[in-house]
Parts: sequence; structure tokens; C-alpha cells
Amino acid sequence: MNFTKEEILGVLDTYDLDNITIATICSHSSLQIFDGARKEGFKTLGICLRAPPKYYDAFPLAKPDEFLVLDRYDELLDKVEELKAKNVIIVPHGSFIAYMGTDKFAELGLPTFGNRNVLEWESDRKKERQWLVGAGIHMPDVIEDPRDIDGPVMVKYDGAQGGKGFFIAKSYEDFLEHIDDSKTFTIQKFITGTRYYLHYFYSPIKEDGYTLSKGTLEMLSMDRRVESNADEIFRLGSPKELLEAGIVPTYVVTGNAPLVARESLLPLIFELGSRVVEESLKKFGGMIGPFCLETVFTDDLEIKVFEISARIVAGTNLYISGSPYADLVEENLSTGRRIAREIKIAKETGKLDEIIS
Amino acid sequence: MNFTKEEILGVLDTYDLDNITIATICSHSSLQIFDGARKEGFKTLGICLRAPPKYYDAFPLAKPDEFLVLDRYDELLDKVEELKAKNVIIVPHGSFIAYMGTDKFAELGLPTFGNRNVLEWESDRKKERQWLVGAGIHMPDVIEDPRDIDGPVMVKYDGAQGGKGFFIAKSYEDFLEHIDDSKTFTIQKFITGTRYYLHYFYSPIKEDGYTLSKGTLEMLSMDRRVESNADEIFRLGSPKELLEAGIVPTYVVTGNAPLVARESLLPLIFELGSRVVEESLKKFGGMIGPFCLETVFTDDLEIKVFEISARIVAGTNLYISGSPYADLVEENLSTGRRIAREIKIAKETGKLDEIIS
Amino acid sequence: MNFTKEEILGVLDTYDLDNITIATICSHSSLQIFDGARKEGFKTLGICLRAPPKYYDAFPLAKPDEFLVLDRYDELLDKVEELKAKNVIIVPHGSFIAYMGTDKFAELGLPTFGNRNVLEWESDRKKERQWLVGAGIHMPDVIEDPRDIDGPVMVKYDGAQGGKGFFIAKSYEDFLEHIDDSKTFTIQKFITGTRYYLHYFYSPIKEDGYTLSKGTLEMLSMDRRVESNADEIFRLGSPKELLEAGIVPTYVVTGNAPLVARESLLPLIFELGSRVVEESLKKFGGMIGPFCLETVFTDDLEIKVFEISARIVAGTNLYISGSPYADLVEENLSTGRRIAREIKIAKETGKLDEIIS
Repeated sequence: MNFTKEEILGVLDTYDLDNITIATICSHSSLQIFDGARKEGFKTLGICLRAPPKYYDAFPLAKPDEFLVLDRYDELLDKVEELKAKNVIIVPHGSFIAYMGTDKFAELGLPTFGNRNVLEWESDRKKERQWLVGAGIHMPDVIEDPRDIDGPVMVKYDGAQGGKGFFIAKSYEDFLEHIDDSKTFTIQKFITGTRYYLHYFYSPIKEDGYTLSKGTLEMLSMDRRVESNADEIFRLGSPKELLEAGIVPTYVVTGNAPLVARESLLPLIFELGSRVVEESLKKFGGMIGPFCLETVFTDDLEIKVFEISARIVAGTNLYISGSPYADLVEENLSTGRRIAREIKIAKETGKLDEIIS
Repeated sequence: MNFTKEEILGVLDTYDLDNITIATICSHSSLQIFDGARKEGFKTLGICLRAPPKYYDAFPLAKPDEFLVLDRYDELLDKVEELKAKNVIIVPHGSFIAYMGTDKFAELGLPTFGNRNVLEWESDRKKERQWLVGAGIHMPDVIEDPRDIDGPVMVKYDGAQGGKGFFIAKSYEDFLEHIDDSKTFTIQKFITGTRYYLHYFYSPIKEDGYTLSKGTLEMLSMDRRVESNADEIFRLGSPKELLEAGIVPTYVVTGNAPLVARESLLPLIFELGSRVVEESLKKFGGMIGPFCLETVFTDDLEIKVFEISARIVAGTNLYISGSPYADLVEENLSTGRRIAREIKIAKETGKLDEIIS
Repeated sequence: MNFTKEEILGVLDTYDLDNITIATICSHSSLQIFDGARKEGFKTLGICLRAPPKYYDAFPLAKPDEFLVLDRYDELLDKVEELKAKNVIIVPHGSFIAYMGTDKFAELGLPTFGNRNVLEWESDRKKERQWLVGAGIHMPDVIEDPRDIDGPVMVKYDGAQGGKGFFIAKSYEDFLEHIDDSKTFTIQKFITGTRYYLHYFYSPIKEDGYTLSKGTLEMLSMDRRVESNADEIFRLGSPKELLEAGIVPTYVVTGNAPLVARESLLPLIFELGSRVVEESLKKFGGMIGPFCLETVFTDDLEIKVFEISARIVAGTNLYISGSPYADLVEENLSTGRRIAREIKIAKETGKLDEIIS
């Protein structure tokens, strides 16, 4: 039983808007989300399993005011009335949806920051591609038939978490040697270049700034993911030497490192973000709040997009107290705080219906 | 018709110094330059082609007060009277000169931050080498005759922008295979180590601090350039394997990543900066303001300098709100702000003639 | 003649606690230590050879109030009475002990931040391993007999400074080719993954926070060391290709780069820190103040610890004005400042005897 936006707004109508509580699952980017919510004056609630995570005690500025302790994340569905009584708005992050599961998340009858409809577009690689290519974004070519591999490709299993199990193949033979037939996968041409993960924020209600057909676009920061063991495996040998030794490069994200892009690329970076948002407005009413384009900058200074995350990404955790970009919007602005700010402004201007679903 | 310093100071004499406008071309490090100028209380003017760059709308704290819109950058020469009326001081960055061209830039009759004479010393690799080696700096050996290549070398085309077309050769045969004979080039011994781009600031008018024969030296930050595709190409294969597959590593700068150096290297870092400044004072009256030594730190903890940039570099864009070094000079100090501060202090102490030309 | 804790506390009893001076050797992380001490209101004294290091003049916020100039670091032993008269508390860093030597350091009869007993446990690789393994920490397997090498290993000479002379061997033959028999060494299994250096702070006197059996644990930041020439050597060739060309990868630390870890790894990160502290409490009365676990995060998201530093590490120099973690404890908190804060709180609550020895 999925909820419609109208039903959710009906719940919101019952809320005491002067006592909103921002809630999320204690993981991924939750320290930042709670820190940002606190700075904007909201109460906070952390959802966790078995017991409040002890590491929060080490970060007093990010510790939520209270915890909701569950045995399994889907028990959240049984706590809806309790959370409504606390005027809870859910801020979902990547792990939130992974932990609950897409289906259960859709059944959660609580006001949630962002647009629920984005889920079906990003969880399916074919629809994601349709969206991005529709927006005129350059994505790495997809190879439908593995026998057509005629140069380096990246093979990605659908729904893989954090890069686990991705591999590079250079030929059909290479592909056959590594592929796990029991899983569905996508083959993308491997793009040589440098990886940048671009952290945007789309507000449908802000009127001044980098304006789109509706609302405004910000670019708050960027990072490069730290991938184990691919990032440092060259110390042992080249891919070919490693293969002969039976050592397989892997692409599991263990963290993030900061960087900035050439200023001359900013027009293109904003153009890409704009196109993706405009297309999302057409296709499903708009992707609201933070999103991330996962890109490669080539040596022709082109930007190829290989994936989109339609919510706050963990790379923003680098920028709890601002970034070289966010600091030019407002000092000390994290993505977590930007989310809380959006909710605050929407509340004050009577526009919560435009950012909640 | 190049301008002499005297002529430029004559222009400055006509200025209303309480209404200085800081101007630069909208690219490279302009966000930081405008942000810094604003923080120091200056008016700002952005020079751009066709239309004000929309991305500035996303960074309100860095948006200049007004724009000068041109069709070609050399039209700037026709706007000199208009800009004089606004009491414009130009802050040039790397792209400023690349976009206008060295010749046209020399013809720009507007007060400009820094020493115009530095241009001829940095734009010619032979004179650059004469300057640095004259300062007692260790540079990678230059190989005059390609047939003398007997180990790894880096081949650089003169005037190449952002590392495009550089290549590593390990032998004369290797060299012949890659060289584009139509261009002039320099061959430097390849130094193994880790790259550091050191961001200094030389003030001829500040009296307290790390003093030189005249003025003081600061070291505000450092970065490592992100180079596409060289930085991540190892994921595909070793240089030799790539060569066999027809894939060529390239060294195009796409952005910058932050780092710090061992504190025990700071004496050497300052020694290098001092020598370069002292030699510039002897050779052409001094290199004023920000400059960058592009270096490799070897495993003997020696620092080899492979190039100098005699103005603000894009790596400083990482440090809009300070750096681990600048924060020990003054909190929240970017290189852009440091430039504006220098102009402000010079104005207040009647020393603009020492930093403008 | 080594000093006991009781003797040192006797010295402390003679101090004017309202006029404490924080002193350290001018290197490693001293800028940060002095900056932090100044921010907490302490006087500062820099110990140096021959003359005050000139680079301090470039960093006014970190320049100590006065210098003690020596010809050799062990002359410090002759200056003890002079320093007592200034109510000096020594804050040791990695280079402090390396420069003085472990033996001389033990003979220094001045109140010192931290637990003197930790030295014997970290300077001997066997005792270090006993401590960490006793704490239930996963360390890379040690190979006692080189003939048992059957996969990649890292060979480390005992007492090697900054990674100089470490090497990777893949077989016994490989090992024989590189080993310097005149030195003692340790062979560890090479762990593929990404390196993280985790910066903790253990306070035996703070009561609220992430509590242990006594006191509390903080995690203030993390870095990755920049190693010359290993980090960029892949641009020249694979390890095998380099070997054939007679080029040897080296692991000399030239600096540090910032990063953050996946939030979902924080429980494990705190668990590791807790275990090490608890075991230190059992074994030698506790490791007080900052310490660092040098780790590899594998693609199974396990954390292997390959070494411990029982005091402030240079990687914290990235975070002079806070870090993405420290900012959630308190804004603008560096490890250097955290040390000064600990001394201040201990002084105010009469607990200096718990953090000084």
C-alpha cells in the first residue's frame, strides 16, 4: 500500500509545524543531517537497531535529541502513529532506502523530504539512463551484447551496494572469465579520466540564484570516492600482473576525499545539473533537494555521467562546516544544514507541500 | 604599444582611491578573487564574453557588483577609459593572460596588481630556467638532445595549457614514437616522488613576518593537481600495457586536491620561496603577490621545482575560507582575500606604486 | 636515570599552575600545538637547534612566546631547572622522541603530557603487537621465516623513520633480492585496501561522551599519508616493470591528505580505539591523549591495523581549524588545541596527576 502525495500532505496538515522533528536512520550521513537540523533549530530523532549507536556520544553536536530503537528497520512501519505525534519529517539518505528496502520505504506513511516518485527512476538502471539521456547528458555507451566488447568496459551488477563486485573487462574473454551469470548486470564503456562526484541541491521554492524553469540550483561541494582496493592496488602490480596472481581489483567505497574542479568547468557542471532537474520536472514532477552526479572528467574536459544519486550522498560528510563552494553561498553551510534550511523556509512561507511527499 | 610602470602610475594618480574597483576575467580563480575583494570592502567587476556567466548567480558571496560583457577578450583594450572612470585595478590570473594573449595584455593601460615584467620571465621556458637556476633552485635536468635520453623523461610542449600533450618517454625510441615535430618542446628528466604545488605570497610592503631583503614572504597553502587521465589510468593497465593497447596517458588538469607537507620541510619550502623572490628582485624588480612553485618531493626529502607560476593559481580555490597554513596567519584568509588586503594596505599607507604596474 | 611518575608529580607540586608554559620541539606538529596552546590561554616555548626557525615568523598565530635554543637536543637535559622555573609542561610529538632518543627522553625530569610508560610498548614491534593483538585488534599476519612468504608481504625495518626502506616482496626470491641483512626487520602480510590513519583522543578525566571503563574516547580526524615515491610511481611503470628498470618504490612520508570514512564504519572505528585504550589501561596504566591507528580498510569493510602511534601524529596538521569529525565535538578544535584543553581542564579540576607523568 503505497502512499500518494495527497495522503502524505493530509498527515502534514495535522502537524504542529512549530514542533517539527527531523528524523533519519543513524548511518550514512546522519551526523551531518542531525547537526544541520540542530543548527536550524529543529528537534531531531535517530532511528536505529537494538540500541542507540554509542559513537553518537562522541559527537555531541550531532547527537539527536532522542532515539527510536527497533529490531528490524521495517518495524518503522508500525511506529508511524508515534512518529506523527512527534511531527516527524523523514530525511532519507542512500542507506535509509537500502536498509528498509524500496518497497517498504514506499509504504511509509510519514511526511518525507523530497519526491517519492524519484525512486522508481533511479533504482532501475534502464529508467535512470532514459532520464539522463533524455536530459541530453553524455553517459558512457552501454554495450548490450557482451560479445560486442572491443575495448575496456566496466561491468556493474544491478543494485550492487558501494561498488562491490564491479569489474573492468577488456575483451569478451575477459568478461566471461569474471562474470557471475546468476546476477543481472550492465556493461558500460570504461571512460578514462578523473572521477568527480558533484553535490547539487535543487530547491523548487527558492527564487533567487541560479534559476531554472522553476526554482533554483546550487552546487555545494564535490568529492572523490575512496575505493578499496582499486585505489592502491597498483602498489602490488598492474591489472594484468594482478590477474595472473589471482588478485582481483574491487571498487568498494570506504570513504571520500575532497577536491575542487577547474572554475572554467563550472558552466558545464551547472548545465548538467540543470538538464537533469528540468528533465525530472517533466518526467515525474521534479527531484527535490540534494542529488549527486557521478562523473568522469576526460582529458578533453568533457564530463561523462555514469550514475545519479537522487538524495544526499556520503561524500558531503567531508563538508560539515562548509566547502570551497558552499562557503560562497553562505558560510558554514553543509548539505545537511541546507536540507533543514529548506524545510524551515518552506514552513515559514507555507510551501511545505512543494518539498514534502 | 606596451605601457611602462610610470605611465600606469600616472593613470593611478587620476583615481579616486576610496572607490577602487577590483576587476578580473570570470574564470580560473575569479570566484575567490571577488569574494576576497568583497570581504576587504572593494567594489568588483567581472569581465566576461557574451553574457554574465550564470553560475555566479549560484554563489552570491562571490558575484561581482557588475559585469563588463565583451565579444572577444581583446576588446578590453577599447574599454580602458570606461574602466579608468571606475577606478579599476586588474587582478590577473593564469587564464587572464592565456585568454587575452601576452601581447595584448602588455598593451592594457590599466593599473594591474603585480609586476608586468614577470611575464617575459615565465612565458619563456629558457628564461624561467635561468631565473630559477640562478636562484639556486634544483630543477629536473634538461636534456637538450633527445638522443641523450637514457632514463624516464617528461616531454613538455612550450606554451601547453593545463598539461595537454605532455608525455613520459623512457628512451629515444619512445620519444620518436610520440613526438609532434611541429611544436617546440622541452625535455626534463622525470623525477619520481610526490607532487606538491606550493602557494606563496610575496609582499614588498609588509614589514613584519618572514622578512626578505625587502618585504615579507608567506606560504598560504598547497595542493596537488588532479590530472586526467594520468591519475586513474593505472586502473586499466601499466604504462607499457596501455601503450600496447594504444591508450596514451595525458596530464590535463581537471581540478585540485588538498594536502599538507611534513612540518620539517617548511624551512626548505620557505628557503625555496625566498630564493626565487630575491632573484626576481635582482632580475626584474621583484615578483609581487601570489606565486606557485610546482614541485616534486623526492624520497630523499629533497624538493625539485619543475615550474613557476607568477600569479594566483587555481589550486588556491580549495581554500576559500582558509587553509591549514593561512589559518596560522589569520583565520579565514584566502589567497584572493590576501590580494585584496595587500591593495587595501598599500592604499592606506601610500604604497600602491610598489605593488601596481 | 629514568624518572618515576611520583618524582615528576613532585616537580609539578612546585609549579605555579596559573603560569604554565606549554613546550615542544619546533617540528612535526609544533605549529598546531602552539596555536592550540595559545587559544587555550597558555604561554608557549619552542625548543630548537642553533636559532629559532625563521618559518615561525610567517605564522604569527603559531609562533611561541619564546624559544630555547640548543646545539643538540640532549642538551635539554641540562636546561631542566630553567624550564621548571617557567612551569613548563612538555607536549611530546613523534619527532620529539626521535630527535632526543628514547633513552634521553626517559631521563627528562619535566612534567610531560601523557604516560611515559607507553614508550616501551610502541618502540618495540613485538610488544606493540602483543598490546594490539591482546586488545583483539586484527593485524596483518607476521611471517617469522622469510622462506614462508607465499604472497605479497611488506618488509619493515625496525625503527625506520617515515617509511624509508620499506619494501613489498611477493616471494622468497623477491625478499632475498631486496633485504638488507644488517638490519632487523618485520615481515607483515600485505593487505590490499585503502589506507586510513585514524586520529583518536583518549581522556582519562572527561566523564561525558563515548565512555570507557575510565574516561572517554574521541575520534577527531583521519588522513592518508602521502608517500614518496610509491604514490605516483605507477605513472612510470608497474612494480614489475620498474624492478626490471632498476627503480625501487619507496614509502617515505612527505605529507598528508584529508579524507573521511563511511559513517557505517564509525562503530567499528570506535570499537578499535576503545579496545586499544582498555588494553593499555590494563598493561601500563593507560595511553593518554592523542593516538593514531594506522589501518587498511579492506573491500570486506574490515579494518586491519598495521601500527599504532601513541601521541599526536602529523596527519592532524591538516585540521588546524577543525575537521569533519572534530567540528561535531566543538567548532574549531584541532588535536593541538584538544591537548591544551585537556591540560586546562585537568588544572582546573585538580587532576593534572592523571594526565602528566
